[in-house]
Amino acid sequence: MSLQLLKALIYQSRARGLIYHLHIATWSEHIASRAHSNLFFCTTSSHAAASPTQPRTWGSKKQNRSVKLRAKAEDFIMSNPEIEAQLAPLRERVQEQGNLVKSLKETGAAELDVKKAVAELKARKKMLEDKELALTPSVVSFDRAKMEDLLKRRFFYDQSFAIYGGITGQYDFGPMGCALKSNILSLWRQYFALEEQMLEVDCSILTPEPVLKASGHVERFADLMVKDVKTGECFRLDHLIKQALEKLLKAKDATPALRAECEDIITKLDGLSKQELADVLAKYSIKSPLTGNDLTEPIEFNLMFATQIGPTGLVKGFLRPETAQGIFVNFKRLLEFNQGKLPFAVAQIGNSFRNEISPRSGLIRVREFTMAEIEHFCDPTQKDHPKFGNVKDEKMTLYSACNQMDGKSATQFAIGAAVSAKLVANETLGYYMARIQQFLLAIGIKPECLRFRQHMSNEMAHYACDCWDAEILTSYGWVECVGCADRSAYDLGQHTAATGVRLVAEKRLPAPKTVEVSEIVPNKQALGKTFKKDAKTITEALAKLSLEEISRAEQELNANGQYKLILADGNTHELAKDTISVKHSSKTVHVEEFIPSVVEPSFGIGRIMYALLEHSFQCREGDDQRCYFTLPPLVAPLKCSILPLSNNAEFQPFTQKLSSFLTKAELSHKVDDSSGSIGRRYARTDEIAIPYGITVDFDTLKEPHTVTLRDRNSMKQVRVGLEKVVGVVKDLATARTSWEQVVAQYPVFEQQEATK
Amino acid sequence: MSLQLLKALIYQSRARGLIYHLHIATWSEHIASRAHSNLFFCTTSSHAAASPTQPRTWGSKKQNRSVKLRAKAEDFIMSNPEIEAQLAPLRERVQEQGNLVKSLKETGAAELDVKKAVAELKARKKMLEDKELALTPSVVSFDRAKMEDLLKRRFFYDQSFAIYGGITGQYDFGPMGCALKSNILSLWRQYFALEEQMLEVDCSILTPEPVLKASGHVERFADLMVKDVKTGECFRLDHLIKQALEKLLKAKDATPALRAECEDIITKLDGLSKQELADVLAKYSIKSPLTGNDLTEPIEFNLMFATQIGPTGLVKGFLRPETAQGIFVNFKRLLEFNQGKLPFAVAQIGNSFRNEISPRSGLIRVREFTMAEIEHFCDPTQKDHPKFGNVKDEKMTLYSACNQMDGKSATQFAIGAAVSAKLVANETLGYYMARIQQFLLAIGIKPECLRFRQHMSNEMAHYACDCWDAEILTSYGWVECVGCADRSAYDLGQHTAATGVRLVAEKRLPAPKTVEVSEIVPNKQALGKTFKKDAKTITEALAKLSLEEISRAEQELNANGQYKLILADGNTHELAKDTISVKHSSKTVHVEEFIPSVVEPSFGIGRIMYALLEHSFQCREGDDQRCYFTLPPLVAPLKCSILPLSNNAEFQPFTQKLSSFLTKAELSHKVDDSSGSIGRRYARTDEIAIPYGITVDFDTLKEPHTVTLRDRNSMKQVRVGLEKVVGVVKDLATARTSWEQVVAQYPVFEQQEATK
Repeated sequence: MSLQLLKALIYQSRARGLIYHLHIATWSEHIASRAHSNLFFCTTSSHAAASPTQPRTWGSKKQNRSVKLRAKAEDFIMSNPEIEAQLAPLRERVQEQGNLVKSLKETGAAELDVKKAVAELKARKKMLEDKELALTPSVVSFDRAKMEDLLKRRFFYDQSFAIYGGITGQYDFGPMGCALKSNILSLWRQYFALEEQMLEVDCSILTPEPVLKASGHVERFADLMVKDVKTGECFRLDHLIKQALEKLLKAKDATPALRAECEDIITKLDGLSKQELADVLAKYSIKSPLTGNDLTEPIEFNLMFATQIGPTGLVKGFLRPETAQGIFVNFKRLLEFNQGKLPFAVAQIGNSFRNEISPRSGLIRVREFTMAEIEHFCDPTQKDHPKFGNVKDEKMTLYSACNQMDGKSATQFAIGAAVSAKLVANETLGYYMARIQQFLLAIGIKPECLRFRQHMSNEMAHYACDCWDAEILTSYGWVECVGCADRSAYDLGQHTAATGVRLVAEKRLPAPKTVEVSEIVPNKQALGKTFKKDAKTITEALAKLSLEEISRAEQELNANGQYKLILADGNTHELAKDTISVKHSSKTVHVEEFIPSVVEPSFGIGRIMYALLEHSFQCREGDDQRCYFTLPPLVAPLKCSILPLSNNAEFQPFTQKLSSFLTKAELSHKVDDSSGSIGRRYARTDEIAIPYGITVDFDTLKEPHTVTLRDRNSMKQVRVGLEKVVGVVKDLATARTSWEQVVAQYPVFEQQEATK
Repeated sequence: MSLQLLKALIYQSRARGLIYHLHIATWSEHIASRAHSNLFFCTTSSHAAASPTQPRTWGSKKQNRSVKLRAKAEDFIMSNPEIEAQLAPLRERVQEQGNLVKSLKETGAAELDVKKAVAELKARKKMLEDKELALTPSVVSFDRAKMEDLLKRRFFYDQSFAIYGGITGQYDFGPMGCALKSNILSLWRQYFALEEQMLEVDCSILTPEPVLKASGHVERFADLMVKDVKTGECFRLDHLIKQALEKLLKAKDATPALRAECEDIITKLDGLSKQELADVLAKYSIKSPLTGNDLTEPIEFNLMFATQIGPTGLVKGFLRPETAQGIFVNFKRLLEFNQGKLPFAVAQIGNSFRNEISPRSGLIRVREFTMAEIEHFCDPTQKDHPKFGNVKDEKMTLYSACNQMDGKSATQFAIGAAVSAKLVANETLGYYMARIQQFLLAIGIKPECLRFRQHMSNEMAHYACDCWDAEILTSYGWVECVGCADRSAYDLGQHTAATGVRLVAEKRLPAPKTVEVSEIVPNKQALGKTFKKDAKTITEALAKLSLEEISRAEQELNANGQYKLILADGNTHELAKDTISVKHSSKTVHVEEFIPSVVEPSFGIGRIMYALLEHSFQCREGDDQRCYFTLPPLVAPLKCSILPLSNNAEFQPFTQKLSSFLTKAELSHKVDDSSGSIGRRYARTDEIAIPYGITVDFDTLKEPHTVTLRDRNSMKQVRVGLEKVVGVVKDLATARTSWEQVVAQYPVFEQQEATK
């Protein structure tokens, strides 16, 4: 049963060797790369209980629990003993390495050793996953080149500025692509912004440098590259090394030892440091693949597009690499809009930019892309969710960090069970994961091609508590399309530190409490006399001192009669006893301030669209040339076509009338009154995924006027009254009825469809 | 009657002197500045008959017609004799100058003289317009500061990155601003994309340099500025001069002669050349207003944001200054999508960027803005429109170029009459003007504050046939919000010339015709032998030769036995008789190629939004502090509020039920169960323009359950059954019913609303 499900998910093309082993962009790179502390290891294990005060540790207690979890869960893969036999040794190798990583961490091994072990772990995981996919019998055929040809021919999307030679990594969406995207976004708004009463905002794309310094993007949002010393041509370093070593591997004269070495480096590439990569370059004397020229040392290339704001050339700005920062910097205004109450969620749809060194893989790795992001702000001690009960039974395929470490497969859980078992950190995170799944399935993603993969602790930014990526299986492999992370208080904390504006919320204390307050009271007159124009700066600096610094000042004043104030710019001032004094008092407080936690679901719209197109691409049985997309009516670019049987003038008033009825009903549609057989025109509308077609024929001319209504997927037709058909299409397009119900209600129309 | 209308449009604030005389950004700068040939004068008068073959000329025949037109039209202004008496001398001065401009053009005067005369004409027009506005009695009070305070306080929109000090000319839209914008755009899609079955596209923002070179933006999309030689601070030159001369004017010791001189320069500023402006700078020794330092010579500052695409630093790109170019470069794909048929229209909504030297005037002059543009492609000889009949009776306020030249006011026309009289160049242009008006009125722009102003021939790009701006009256004066231009074949022609890709359409000839074809036939073998690797380039160059060049080649070959081919890169090759020959033949053609014309309506969404907010801002009679927006339900950010009368726990289930009903009905809403009196909460919902409010009170608890429904504008309430109320709100929000109808149907609820 579960194997049946899995069977459907593997594309024959993979077996045919059509799948290129590209370095697939991780969506989490888009979203987690901000301030991602490179392979920082916290003691927190991502699949154990999350508590902000008690870091989770690897240990036997936890292991027992996870065994229990696995026993409860449905198991996908292991049901076929033959396949499992072949996978077993690979699983063991992963588990062995997983255990090594765990023990290295437990014994506090050097970071570099842990890093290397993790790189090896990832490599073994990849081999296991590739084998799993290769062994699973495939039942669906998929021809990517054929689909891409159709997408281009009917201008769903295509390379931008093609008549000028084009720019890689940029795409223009034509009428069908644009409508599909716009329908997906409008459903997204309904599913998230409207349903959850989120605050939707629309912030600037151009972002000044200090904002992205605080977020960590200026420092860390970079890829390594090398340049051809003569031509200046740039290569992304990991891609280049992989390509060069693969060439070495395949050379006839390659020794087994060399081959093993190359394979080893390739599998570990992701985990190598800048220096290690430079050493590989040197060892194998890798040159420019285009010219054979020497290459520079590895250079960190920041992936943000830089520009200047205003005419002076002095205000540096970037095109935002994500929309989230616009929400964080507006936190105060948004909290106030929400009348100071937590939790609340903010949504934003917009374009982001990423100056890829060498973009490829079509819509999956691009320079300009649309994101839909949500920032859910909540009290860090209250991460339950009032609507969690609505989704707790949602069955989800979870690929936990634990399973990844142990060489196991993804398993199915009800999200309620996963949260109860602390596999998923909290209800809020779990709620969003379930809603993400519901949304993806509603637009037409195949359930068997969707999984949620948990970040392993080494993948996760150090401040994050838990992070799950919705990954969708495509001909490029599993592609991260939605990230869902509990980012704790990191982002608001960073902007608070950078600006001095306290991005905090308040909550009422269970009981009022008395707190001691110490402050430095400046003697303004004396300060002014002594420090003249510096007095203002000094007064401001004194107001910002921390409690510790105030008590140090008090000690110094008592001991030496003066206090040495160090300003932020490094200047110091000696403040004598007559200029300042320290005052102590106590006050009763009823509320306390805290920095809210944020849970962030982040959707890559282009990637979701691409996956959806793959999942819905079909060819008619027995006619390889007649391809179509089975996009659900809710997101299909156009809802209906109107086709007069021929160019007989008598059909025209009916065509026009139908078109105006459809417009009034807000149903996007297309009239195709060109010549060409009706079958050929059906085929053309199928290509652009129009789910329903109305045909005006000779029977339409008779009273009572009727038309035929055709379903794209089944190619079946029914005969419906002219006045009724628009209502039927409206109900179908808004999912208020199904085609099966329509067939049950109206007479089937049996005329053979001409296919050529 | 018409004066009544006009009365409503003038804001008291203008009389109060609240209006700053800013240089208001012209929306046409955004859209017409591309490739705008500076003050180019064609012999075409923009208000006479447009024919691509017969240029229109100024003359007595036309003048007779325009007199007739004016006699037919309703006249706004002249109905008040007192006002008219004061305006008469100003009107005469405009007309006098208008006649001078005409005669200069007719006699073929030097361009500089015409330019100066036009600058003076504009200045006189401005004085007339200012006087007109100042004299008209105002009945509506408007306090911009109060509205801006509300917009900021309830976060409709606010300066971006404010916690980092902010960036001028960039705004973030908060929840209410974002929802308003999104509702306006969705109505726009319905009015244009859906209703006219346009092809909507979504193209890249990052644009490589060659595209914007071809469009004219690299060369001409610039403003003049000067820099402080020491600090590098930049000033927009016209703003700076105006400021400096106004200071001189107001100095106590200014002589009448100096005053007159300054006034004269200020009024003519727009028309002065770079050199003339530099002369003004020098003559009055204008320094930096901030530091008193010297200033540089005027510099042309290109208003596009530049960046590099890819890591090499070699591919220069810009953030698009308009969305239109994305449509033009995709013309071939779009024509093909439309099965080769003209006319068709393409729509695009997206962000554009403009690096203003010193942005101001809030949302009116910004660095990042959303546009909605349409490019309607048609046969230049067939500019009639099949749906023109639907709009021909639409009454519009047209401010023709002729009236502007003659010192007359805007007049009212039915658009059908305006097109018949050739005041508006063609049906397609007229159709879009009428649809633009219908759209603006539907979202809530006041009809009396809307006019269409025709570009005078000197304002119009030289290739354009006719151009009308929809201008909306705001406290900043008349602001261009939508441009509507017949741009002829210019854009497609430019990209064809730059790329060699023929952006053309075909049409069937009335009868087949025979044409002579000449071509150069290369002898591949001989060419290859002689020119080796250059042979390919030569063959390609030969294929692109024009007919004239081919006949020149034939002559040279006959005369000298060889032909000197000049390549695009300047290299030349001597081609001997054995390498090429000229072949003549004749063929019958059934179709001819042509470059389509384009009619372009271009909407500045931020400007429209700002004007709409001004037009809908109100304060309650007798309570200056209780302000609200009368936004129509169709575009209001939220459609409904739910307010329990108090925090009585019994109300909660009803509140929740209503909220979930509203969500199911896709009605955005806000539950306000905070403490605070019901009147105060109504006032809060009024501030964010929520048109309807449902209150759960003690009567709700009784069976049959009922609630009250309140109308924001009238503050009246009715009592409606709990099960029915969501349907009523849905009908109101989608304009299927009106509040008047609701009041007629349900019992009025009379309880006094607490206001404090």
